[in-house]
Amino acid sequence: MSCVKEQLKGEVKKPVVDLKDPLRSLNISGKDIGNMIYTDLLPWSKNGAEETKMFLDQVMNILYEFMHKSNDRSSKILDFHHPDQLMEVLDLSIPDQPQNLDQILVDCKDTLKYQVKTAHPRFFNQLSNGCDTISLAGEFLTSVANANMFTYEIAPVFILLEHVTLKKMRDIIGYENGDSILCPGGTISNMYALLAARYKMFPKIKSEGIRAIPEQLVLFTSEHSHYSIMSAANVTGIGIDNCIEVPCDNAGHMLPEELERLVKEALKCGKKPFFVNATAGTTVFGAFDPLNAIADICEKYGLWMHVDAAWGGGLLLSKKYKNLRFKGVERADSVTWNPHKLMGVLLQCSTVHFKENGLLYQCNRLGADYLFQQDKHYDISYDTGDKVIQCGRHNDIFKLWLAWRAKGTEGYGKQMDRFMELTEYMIKKLNAQPDKFWIIVPKPECTNVCFWYIPERLRKMPHSQEKERLLGQITPILKGKMMNSGTLMIGYQPQGKLPNFFRNIISNQAVREEDIDFLVDELDRLGKDL
Amino acid sequence: MSCVKEQLKGEVKKPVVDLKDPLRSLNISGKDIGNMIYTDLLPWSKNGAEETKMFLDQVMNILYEFMHKSNDRSSKILDFHHPDQLMEVLDLSIPDQPQNLDQILVDCKDTLKYQVKTAHPRFFNQLSNGCDTISLAGEFLTSVANANMFTYEIAPVFILLEHVTLKKMRDIIGYENGDSILCPGGTISNMYALLAARYKMFPKIKSEGIRAIPEQLVLFTSEHSHYSIMSAANVTGIGIDNCIEVPCDNAGHMLPEELERLVKEALKCGKKPFFVNATAGTTVFGAFDPLNAIADICEKYGLWMHVDAAWGGGLLLSKKYKNLRFKGVERADSVTWNPHKLMGVLLQCSTVHFKENGLLYQCNRLGADYLFQQDKHYDISYDTGDKVIQCGRHNDIFKLWLAWRAKGTEGYGKQMDRFMELTEYMIKKLNAQPDKFWIIVPKPECTNVCFWYIPERLRKMPHSQEKERLLGQITPILKGKMMNSGTLMIGYQPQGKLPNFFRNIISNQAVREEDIDFLVDELDRLGKDL
Repeated sequence: MSCVKEQLKGEVKKPVVDLKDPLRSLNISGKDIGNMIYTDLLPWSKNGAEETKMFLDQVMNILYEFMHKSNDRSSKILDFHHPDQLMEVLDLSIPDQPQNLDQILVDCKDTLKYQVKTAHPRFFNQLSNGCDTISLAGEFLTSVANANMFTYEIAPVFILLEHVTLKKMRDIIGYENGDSILCPGGTISNMYALLAARYKMFPKIKSEGIRAIPEQLVLFTSEHSHYSIMSAANVTGIGIDNCIEVPCDNAGHMLPEELERLVKEALKCGKKPFFVNATAGTTVFGAFDPLNAIADICEKYGLWMHVDAAWGGGLLLSKKYKNLRFKGVERADSVTWNPHKLMGVLLQCSTVHFKENGLLYQCNRLGADYLFQQDKHYDISYDTGDKVIQCGRHNDIFKLWLAWRAKGTEGYGKQMDRFMELTEYMIKKLNAQPDKFWIIVPKPECTNVCFWYIPERLRKMPHSQEKERLLGQITPILKGKMMNSGTLMIGYQPQGKLPNFFRNIISNQAVREEDIDFLVDELDRLGKDL
Repeated sequence: MSCVKEQLKGEVKKPVVDLKDPLRSLNISGKDIGNMIYTDLLPWSKNGAEETKMFLDQVMNILYEFMHKSNDRSSKILDFHHPDQLMEVLDLSIPDQPQNLDQILVDCKDTLKYQVKTAHPRFFNQLSNGCDTISLAGEFLTSVANANMFTYEIAPVFILLEHVTLKKMRDIIGYENGDSILCPGGTISNMYALLAARYKMFPKIKSEGIRAIPEQLVLFTSEHSHYSIMSAANVTGIGIDNCIEVPCDNAGHMLPEELERLVKEALKCGKKPFFVNATAGTTVFGAFDPLNAIADICEKYGLWMHVDAAWGGGLLLSKKYKNLRFKGVERADSVTWNPHKLMGVLLQCSTVHFKENGLLYQCNRLGADYLFQQDKHYDISYDTGDKVIQCGRHNDIFKLWLAWRAKGTEGYGKQMDRFMELTEYMIKKLNAQPDKFWIIVPKPECTNVCFWYIPERLRKMPHSQEKERLLGQITPILKGKMMNSGTLMIGYQPQGKLPNFFRNIISNQAVREEDIDFLVDELDRLGKDL
């Protein structure tokens, strides 16, 4: 026991756990929980409270170690193995017999050993990354509460938090009333908007199906928009050929005159245009479509206007960027906005907002009285089950609300301004080395920085389509080198006629100028001889 | 400092935290993190590792307290307040300025104070409940890893775990090959099945929409089935009138002869039947449809057969109950199975399985090369992004895999047998007091026990429709009394002609015989004078 106390005294002076051996205190208080199995814990063992705490404390130590490494710039982002290699290194099998708690802890450690550190300050790969500690605390609480979100009856506080938080978001968008819902990701959020539009304009479809409408429905979205709009056309039975892609300018903005031309063309062919998706922050370029111009066309032709701000939505929290990017957003009928992107809320957290109240309910309600009783002893207007296309729904609100409480709206505003400041810093850095980097979008509207890296052998070659082709071949090779070195992660993709190029994303609150400096140097170190 | 050490010594002897005041050690190591704000933590402060651990340790203390209370039979399940009351008691507002960490911890405590303890052994209200400690550890790790599930690139181990675990589930169903995906809930899982069936039989719909098919599509599901099938008919543009409800026998089983009659009738009207949903564990009665008889009809008429085993699926893990309930399941084209129900995995965790490999990919793929590059340096057959209707997808696999590792398949089998044993115990208890309880389904096929409670004044009245009507009036009143007393939670609903009755669910691994005994007595205590 005395040696155990010594260990704990050590921890008082230096509360961060011994990261080299988070399992070392398995044996505190004289119990060896490592040899125990799950039935020794709550809820299986009535008296398992102490063992449960000991076990979860050990899990937490493993997690602290991972968080610590994720925030340590000298640690690797990933230790890449090909799928077949990883299958060999790890024992992922499902056993017939229970594994003891030691093995479960080893399973946790091994999983994290090979997991990509998406919170590492040099992970610039995805729109969602980072690990916001407050949001993390929220997700821990959410897990323990394990409550489904269909009724006030079983999730009273969480349901009220949805009301308060979604109302705040609608206020920021500029909706006076309206309604909103949290969804499992932006793709489903966008589909909700399409469903609401379809119901609003053709309510018969709910009962009779699409064949109740004599004309073919068509919808419009820009060629740079997210594929979720096309996916929604597929799922809802409209068909992807009837999701018409509107051309963009070179910076990725939908051309309103092209939209109008295509709407007219569809009408001339006897089709029924009904829905336009405008993007506020495209996936690749981060471009914001001209909302007012699109709203004018939607009004003129009686079309539902949706704004997919899944990615760019966070900028609504910055006075400066709301003003610069979102003029006209309040004219939209619906808006998708994903807090799990720029706002740094842990996955998943996506919202969709509607100007008209009651529509979600009318559109999706199926009158399943056996689940959503109308004769409860409380005000059932708070129950959400009848307005969603899910039945059970994960609690995605608490981690958002808690993070917002911790930062305040002003803190969130600063976060957005800071992201944009870092983006400008990166553009400056790349501009300073024009022989090594070719910037594709010189003035990014979100934190997307799109560029090619130019290896030494191509630096003298004037820029041309042929050079772009060659750079496009180098991009995936350089990405492979990044992954093997484990020092940097940046995504790449083609876009239209542009062959593979890098798209760098800043949405991790850990990123600093030094990380951008590193990025620029590291690309050169890994790529110059390609 | 010495007093701090004393506190810690106390913890060594009694590691469970002081549940009365989990905030008391905020001030350890001389730092008062309570007055700090989020920017003092990782990732905002580079040197915030210690403070981050201290903060999260405090959060964990609050969570341990909640878990402890949830497992304490003498504590209340809920402290019910009406929505307007709760809004008054709690400060749920979104502030402009950051709140300090003390306030964030208070927010966590307050939220849990009014949250329903869904893991309490006397919470029998929902299909998903309990708090499986191993699965909880898995969800904690998932939160910290914060990885999206679209590619092997950023979620290598998790993607492999999906392969291994979903393959195991298909093996258990009896599929030799096939494909599967994890979804945000059973409703979306069932919709995936409908989409795959629609694509398989009418691939043109993907590009041209439903109007490409000359006949009206119709699908079939029993009148006792979950409303998600109807929801899928709405979303996919088929229309809810074309989702035909097949009559059931008194125990809630679909009548195969009625199914065949309705299929013939639809054909005679020039409609195009294409999909049949059979339920394995209905929401209210827990009934299992006759799978082989339904499969015969599907084969005869060339219809896609789906099995919605969202609820009953867990029983596949018991040799005894697999044999009793699931004969013919391997003949289905697709199966929904929610580990977040009987298997006790934390919300959300739902799976859908397909007999045919490749179909999910063909059905949902949109060729978004800008997200799912085809020229990566690893085997991209592991990437899942192109086969789902979401883009980002939450990591729902780790908590399932970890729980399965801890229990082994045998442990899960025992869990299922135990649930059924407790269900039989409850039926016996109710049968022993026929004056107080009227059992609606005498031989439950899952853990659903459906009954009316009979107050003293009605005990002499012979059972009749009029008596059922009166009992149906009492049910919601008794439920209100339960919620106000906070001692018991049981769901209720009408079903067909049967007015409101209780449906008791056992899917919490904390439940013991003593809890059933309590339930029976408590209903009588609360209800006898109604």
